[in-house]
Amino acid sequence: MKKLELRMNGLPRTIEVRNSAVGVVLSYIDQQELPKRLSVVETSSWRQVVKAIQALSIRGAPAIGVAGAAALMLWTHEMIANGSSDAVIRSRLPEVVEDIASARPTAVNLRWAVERTKNELLISIRDERGLDKAGERLFNFVKQLEREDEMTNRAIGDNGAKLLEYGSRVLTHCNAGSLATVFYGTALGVVYSAASQGKIKRVYADETRPVGQGARLTTWELARAGVPVTLICDNMAASLMASGRVDAVIVGADRIAKNGDTANKIGTYGVAVLAHEHQIPFYVAAPTSTVDASASSGASIEIEQRSCDEVLTDPIPGVDVLNPAFDITPARYITRIVTEKGAFLPQEIAMSL
Amino acid sequence: MKKLELRMNGLPRTIEVRNSAVGVVLSYIDQQELPKRLSVVETSSWRQVVKAIQALSIRGAPAIGVAGAAALMLWTHEMIANGSSDAVIRSRLPEVVEDIASARPTAVNLRWAVERTKNELLISIRDERGLDKAGERLFNFVKQLEREDEMTNRAIGDNGAKLLEYGSRVLTHCNAGSLATVFYGTALGVVYSAASQGKIKRVYADETRPVGQGARLTTWELARAGVPVTLICDNMAASLMASGRVDAVIVGADRIAKNGDTANKIGTYGVAVLAHEHQIPFYVAAPTSTVDASASSGASIEIEQRSCDEVLTDPIPGVDVLNPAFDITPARYITRIVTEKGAFLPQEIAMSL
Repeated sequence: MKKLELRMNGLPRTIEVRNSAVGVVLSYIDQQELPKRLSVVETSSWRQVVKAIQALSIRGAPAIGVAGAAALMLWTHEMIANGSSDAVIRSRLPEVVEDIASARPTAVNLRWAVERTKNELLISIRDERGLDKAGERLFNFVKQLEREDEMTNRAIGDNGAKLLEYGSRVLTHCNAGSLATVFYGTALGVVYSAASQGKIKRVYADETRPVGQGARLTTWELARAGVPVTLICDNMAASLMASGRVDAVIVGADRIAKNGDTANKIGTYGVAVLAHEHQIPFYVAAPTSTVDASASSGASIEIEQRSCDEVLTDPIPGVDVLNPAFDITPARYITRIVTEKGAFLPQEIAMSL
Repeated sequence: MKKLELRMNGLPRTIEVRNSAVGVVLSYIDQQELPKRLSVVETSSWRQVVKAIQALSIRGAPAIGVAGAAALMLWTHEMIANGSSDAVIRSRLPEVVEDIASARPTAVNLRWAVERTKNELLISIRDERGLDKAGERLFNFVKQLEREDEMTNRAIGDNGAKLLEYGSRVLTHCNAGSLATVFYGTALGVVYSAASQGKIKRVYADETRPVGQGARLTTWELARAGVPVTLICDNMAASLMASGRVDAVIVGADRIAKNGDTANKIGTYGVAVLAHEHQIPFYVAAPTSTVDASASSGASIEIEQRSCDEVLTDPIPGVDVLNPAFDITPARYITRIVTEKGAFLPQEIAMSL
């Protein structure tokens, strides 16, 4: 089979902290504007980063992790610029960490990255006996998280590509792509790595109601990268599988419990059941930072309930609406969880930590 | 459990032929306007009826059957008014029948009703040795089809209600409601009959992408009739079932093969697999006119492919789109097929004919 001409250079970085004329900023793609506009926003306001996470302008578990770290870094720069003492910073820190880490409840990477950044700040204050280097050190720390994220994703991609046959037609749900990370993606990282080896024939993208991460983001980034992509409504996956056109399902994850149960975008569980029924392998691709060692099973993962407006723009009198943003896929439906450390049986995922 | 106060009078008839000031017309609810507007259209043009069927302004297998019959009746009135001879009418009849019957390919009720109307016309011409009574006779024939449809649906409703427990929470997909028929509905006919016996606690309506028959029509008619209804995205059904909130699934059908395989709105098959996995009964409710004795299995049922615009309003460069309007649910996933003649095991549906 002819190799695809991958155009990874065509994919912009999703988020990036940088030194600009106005000081340190987070630059991010406003994903609510895609696919109509590739709109890049720069902000030095940590509150705006939190709002962008809540509004899904920045989304995807790995991306909101790094964005949360960037928000805490921007807050620190703001405090230092205001002349706050290290004592004041230390006293306000817990509240700000909580504001950022609770911007969205389900993805565990957010709290993980923000806590790591908080620790880096406290160590910096202790080591330097003050704030002298805290701003620069946190900036470098977030840059390091960015590099880690891309390296992790490329490793996930290579580990996952080994599981795919040549000529694979892959179904994915939501967007666990480059746009869900700093760069490269998790589930789509596997697609990119496999495509560079000539293994990908086509990707089917579930549109992923109600927010349309598949319809708006997965389609956009795969087309831009040069991977053949077909959009389907979520409810078409079953007949597509029955017709023999799906060789593997690959999705991302927002949180993975110790027993391998996986929280991911609403609808993932249904796709997993369908894949099981059609004897199609179902792969979860995620960094080990997605594993929550404190959750013994999916039952202890909080599911974010979002506004009904996302489902029904104009309310109909007398009609109720549900809008859970995630669901839990029990470990028994998952063939392998692919991390940067390798591809694990779901029940063995705790061994990856 | 307290009985719901059903308000069936609140539901308008979906289609109805009548004598108006301008002559014989078909009056129909334009379902593309719902739920924003309850817009009733009157037309004496058979071509407009065909267009309304193609544009989904009139939809639902039983409703398009009667509408197709009405279209042939309107054509006959037009020909008679133009002074056409019975010889001319007989010679043009096959082409018009084909134009109407092929307006949509999957629902078998359309061809069934149009063929019945054609036979009625030919018999009238033969019996009366001319066209004298053909117009009136066809009008009465369509009125009879309207009455038959409602009686059939009420019988389906009563037969299906027997299968439900008190306090049932029912999931449905698409709209097999009063709006899909002349009046009362098939799957929702079961809901209405059961609700009048105090058996229905709540209906969950899949929104049913891409056209939104669940989001726009099922919600609207259930709320209007006084049945508690909750709208979900199609991809939420799996986690709803896993959480134990669904006691039964009831859907309609566009065509049922002799072996019980059932064609219905895209997404039905996925819901059936999920119901099976969660050990929830899955019922198909449809008149026996939906059974296609010439189709030995689902494999011989044509699936209508509709325009990609329905899925993706603004095309994204390089992105393909699929839009099959129906899928096939194999008989083994169906608990019972409920018809006006009783509730059958799917593999025994041919015995109902």
